[in-house]
Amino acid sequence: MRVLDWNALDDSERTAALERPAQAVGEQVTAAVAEVLDAVRARGADAVVGYTERFDGVGREHLLLSEAEIDRAVEQVPDAVRAAIAQAAATLRTFHAPGALSPFAVDTAPGMRCERIVRPVRTVGLYVPAGSAPLPSTALMLGVPAVLAGCPEVVVCTPPTAQGTADPSVVAACVEVGIRRIAVVGGAQAVGAMAFGAGPIPRCDKIFGPGNSFVTEAKRQVAGMQGGPGIDLPAGPSEQLVIADAGANPVWVAADLLSQAEHGPDSQVVCVSDDRDLLEQVAAEVERQAAELPRAQIVAGALTASRLVLVDDLDQAVAVSNAYAPEHLILAVRAPRELLAGITAAGSIFLGDHTPESLGDYCSGTNHVLPTSGAARYTGGVNLASFQLSITVQEASPRALAQLGATAVTLARAEGLEAHARAVTRRVDASEAAAGGAR
Amino acid sequence: MRVLDWNALDDSERTAALERPAQAVGEQVTAAVAEVLDAVRARGADAVVGYTERFDGVGREHLLLSEAEIDRAVEQVPDAVRAAIAQAAATLRTFHAPGALSPFAVDTAPGMRCERIVRPVRTVGLYVPAGSAPLPSTALMLGVPAVLAGCPEVVVCTPPTAQGTADPSVVAACVEVGIRRIAVVGGAQAVGAMAFGAGPIPRCDKIFGPGNSFVTEAKRQVAGMQGGPGIDLPAGPSEQLVIADAGANPVWVAADLLSQAEHGPDSQVVCVSDDRDLLEQVAAEVERQAAELPRAQIVAGALTASRLVLVDDLDQAVAVSNAYAPEHLILAVRAPRELLAGITAAGSIFLGDHTPESLGDYCSGTNHVLPTSGAARYTGGVNLASFQLSITVQEASPRALAQLGATAVTLARAEGLEAHARAVTRRVDASEAAAGGAR
Repeated sequence: MRVLDWNALDDSERTAALERPAQAVGEQVTAAVAEVLDAVRARGADAVVGYTERFDGVGREHLLLSEAEIDRAVEQVPDAVRAAIAQAAATLRTFHAPGALSPFAVDTAPGMRCERIVRPVRTVGLYVPAGSAPLPSTALMLGVPAVLAGCPEVVVCTPPTAQGTADPSVVAACVEVGIRRIAVVGGAQAVGAMAFGAGPIPRCDKIFGPGNSFVTEAKRQVAGMQGGPGIDLPAGPSEQLVIADAGANPVWVAADLLSQAEHGPDSQVVCVSDDRDLLEQVAAEVERQAAELPRAQIVAGALTASRLVLVDDLDQAVAVSNAYAPEHLILAVRAPRELLAGITAAGSIFLGDHTPESLGDYCSGTNHVLPTSGAARYTGGVNLASFQLSITVQEASPRALAQLGATAVTLARAEGLEAHARAVTRRVDASEAAAGGAR
Repeated sequence: MRVLDWNALDDSERTAALERPAQAVGEQVTAAVAEVLDAVRARGADAVVGYTERFDGVGREHLLLSEAEIDRAVEQVPDAVRAAIAQAAATLRTFHAPGALSPFAVDTAPGMRCERIVRPVRTVGLYVPAGSAPLPSTALMLGVPAVLAGCPEVVVCTPPTAQGTADPSVVAACVEVGIRRIAVVGGAQAVGAMAFGAGPIPRCDKIFGPGNSFVTEAKRQVAGMQGGPGIDLPAGPSEQLVIADAGANPVWVAADLLSQAEHGPDSQVVCVSDDRDLLEQVAAEVERQAAELPRAQIVAGALTASRLVLVDDLDQAVAVSNAYAPEHLILAVRAPRELLAGITAAGSIFLGDHTPESLGDYCSGTNHVLPTSGAARYTGGVNLASFQLSITVQEASPRALAQLGATAVTLARAEGLEAHARAVTRRVDASEAAAGGAR
């Protein structure tokens, strides 16, 4: 990792320094996903079972885990992991509960009652990756708010193990949050099943969860279809930006950068500091620690797109971070709350020396499904409200209709929408006629 | 409009009865939009000015309205329209203010502080259609929450009039809400300008607003680009579903259906009732009233895809409505609040006989930018929170790190992510060593 001096860069060099690695989805992936989705829409569970045989080499008659399979899976999970899952679920519940949308009601004018009511999304589908790395933590991050929101129907889809069942730790996480409807299916066929319905997998109103490029492309395609489901977030590779001051511990900063870099070769990590020595120490530590990691090759890939950026002061570091809008932001500085006020865009922020980002990945209580690729400029991550919808409601008294109706008629006619005006005048003229008749 | 007897239909006929008209975007539109976006990205304001000349026949040196142009436009607006704009803005402010995201903080475990902080989206672009029908109401619906949210930069784009300026009523609506950065540009070139930045139009983090098929396609394309802006909602043609009981006034129900039908030939209106006589009276009234409307031809187009549905009882009417998930739902029944509890998906709901949907379009206080094409299954409409983003924040004490860190380490190793574990152990081992050294 080379140190870039921010103030020696021109505008286009600065833009290049903060660019994410390009995420080109090949035409082959797009076409293959479209074919799978078409087949699942046309042939339902049969197609899903067929693709699971073909892509995963697994023949399962039943897509859903049986109760016996669920119990057996949970028993296989070591006690320490089950306890960790329970602890993580507890912190997630505590943090997510206050994020619920709340209903309210106001009178916007005399007799004009307006309300917001809140409903859980009826049917949600949660995709939990497995395969090379099963992610029980993702089952918790999606399952806890889905259950807290009260979604009436929740289904989890997760790819099969070589034995044709679900990863035990993923099953244990589902059971911990109260989900026992677990389909053993992965890839684009899982997304198709949730989007259109397939056998025991219901057609879902909204689909959540990370996944490989096939899953991500499938979510993108179904969300773009007329009448298609909603999706949680545009998914992209993981990112982390660390703002470190001269007092930061280079060993810890390097460990944080590496924890993000091990996600995948397309991950990106950035460290911004006003202290050149610190940056150089971090660079040396990254090199030293990376060599000791089991996923050293993945890490090496991610580090090619990673940056160390030297700035004049911490205000400039905040400006760089805001322009980048990182998924994860670590403030490894002596007074992190002083910087916090200036942050305008980030997914999740980690304050000080004792809050590694991996705490947030597992058990601080915040959600780890977060905006990437700069989406933190306009959205937060998954939260309880992601599983709810708000509906507005209004009720006018006859008097409110007469008074505000005049405003509606004026504006409707200014817009050339006479039928809009008449929906008011037919009522008001009628009630005026009635009032006249009663006089 | 023909009456369909719901209980005489089989499943596929029911599905067909609730289908929206297909919204095929032609390849020509897709390609034309892509070309415009490419040009605007490459050449900025020059390209925007060029397209405005070519598509709108208008040559403007300056994209933004000058202060003098703004003042002149406002003066041209009749007093009654200005008063109506002010009244509508007032009800919108009253209703939208309580919809703000609120910050909160909780300890999820001893010493583990987690917070949600809230920021306005920094730069938002609001598209306000004009052309055949200028929509000052849309300027209010987007401008009021943008300003309430405190977005630091707000720009409105609206297509030019034949005179090369903005529609006076749209300008008056912008001025009412406090927006004076108004660019006279429409179509895909406006969306491109907001997505990439062009001269005085800033690169926007999120783009809002309805528009024609070029605008909608342009929003879809820029939102799908890596690092692209967010958009408000997947836009589609307007819809309305009315649940009417035997006591409903067929004249008013017909007027409501027609008010929605006049939006465009691809609009759809549905009336569901447990009373065949009422449905037949509504059908007759629709025919009678439609003939009197200035936009009779548009209405006739919309009515071809519209439906009258006979059900057994109002519970079944609610089930039909939930399956359809209408943008607008009118409950023209004697006890609307009894039905409200059963509604699980709708954009905005109008209760009783005295609340025509056109009130919500203009001045009840609720937002008229709402989910269409069944998106109400998973999302509400535009609201104050659409202009905000939530960021999660966490700060662990050294003791919380030691305790929760053990959970993170266990889960990280269960997922095979050793670098995640080490971001904890390098800190905890260090502090244990330090504590040991001090002993």
